[in-house]
Amino acid sequence: MTENLEGMEEQFLELKDTSELMVDLAYSALLYDNEEIAKEVQLLEELVDKLNYKIQRTAFMISLDDKNVDKALAIIRLATSIEAIADAAMEIADVVLRDIEPHPIFKMSVMDSDVIITKTPVSKSSFLANKTLGQSRLMTDTGMWVIAIKRGKTWIYGPDENTKIKNGDVLFARGPREGEKEFLKLTKGRKK
Amino acid sequence: MTENLEGMEEQFLELKDTSELMVDLAYSALLYDNEEIAKEVQLLEELVDKLNYKIQRTAFMISLDDKNVDKALAIIRLATSIEAIADAAMEIADVVLRDIEPHPIFKMSVMDSDVIITKTPVSKSSFLANKTLGQSRLMTDTGMWVIAIKRGKTWIYGPDENTKIKNGDVLFARGPREGEKEFLKLTKGRKK
Repeated sequence: MTENLEGMEEQFLELKDTSELMVDLAYSALLYDNEEIAKEVQLLEELVDKLNYKIQRTAFMISLDDKNVDKALAIIRLATSIEAIADAAMEIADVVLRDIEPHPIFKMSVMDSDVIITKTPVSKSSFLANKTLGQSRLMTDTGMWVIAIKRGKTWIYGPDENTKIKNGDVLFARGPREGEKEFLKLTKGRKK
Repeated sequence: MTENLEGMEEQFLELKDTSELMVDLAYSALLYDNEEIAKEVQLLEELVDKLNYKIQRTAFMISLDDKNVDKALAIIRLATSIEAIADAAMEIADVVLRDIEPHPIFKMSVMDSDVIITKTPVSKSSFLANKTLGQSRLMTDTGMWVIAIKRGKTWIYGPDENTKIKNGDVLFARGPREGEKEFLKLTKGRKK
């Protein structure tokens, strides 16, 4: 039983983080009219489906054990609500995949939002090159959260603190509009 | 027509910001088992409904003008997807309003997530007191985003850069786990 609960905590965690990443990626795909990112959202949707199924299954197993049906139903309800966020992200990405050019006002809205999305290459002179995201302190020093890295033809989606930034990487990030300027300075190497 | 487009950009912006705020508030309501926050999510849902209706109406008016039905449909699709995120947030908040105690593993997941939620009072000795959120540079210096402020019995939801922080306020914030320590230091006044 303890094993079930620990597994479920991991799954909830992954479900929450993945759904949030999907929303950010979906808006990025839209903003940059980028099909590669949109396809990643599609792939992540499959992961979310599987996670939700596992959580529902464990919820039933726990309820068989503790006979508390309401608690099990609350778990299922929560997981399904989080999956709905992922589904919505998928719908947003789908607009890009269907090749319908979204109205420019939508792009303007994403750019004018409190939380903006930006992308920028890491220049040779930037102190970020060869640092991990954790070492870079980008998140805590600028508020900008790196959601994807494009390295040549490959992509790293949802990088973590151990992901190393390389010279020439293109960073996609989301964060407060006020943080963007500082973020761009750091990636351009104008500031250490 | 230009008037329509400008109005729609504003509405999209508000729809996006509100849906994101709702998700953060819904997780906060769940984490702190807080019915007041959950009720705010409910109220915001009504705002989102109205915004989506306005956007759909304008999309039709634009399509009457430029005869581009696909573009209008893409706009409606996007707005509806963003509304779905808000609906999911409402579902999450609903678990709190129904007074079903969510399983503790869910709270653990929210606390262990890459993006965490935290709350803390602003102490007398904190340099934050009487600063606006913009002046405090909390977002850009710690990555933590203030989503709600509890002041005595009143609440400020979705504060902006002009909102003044007062001594004794309880700040609810979301941001990277690495930013929480610094954030707590600043609110406790241990650092300027």
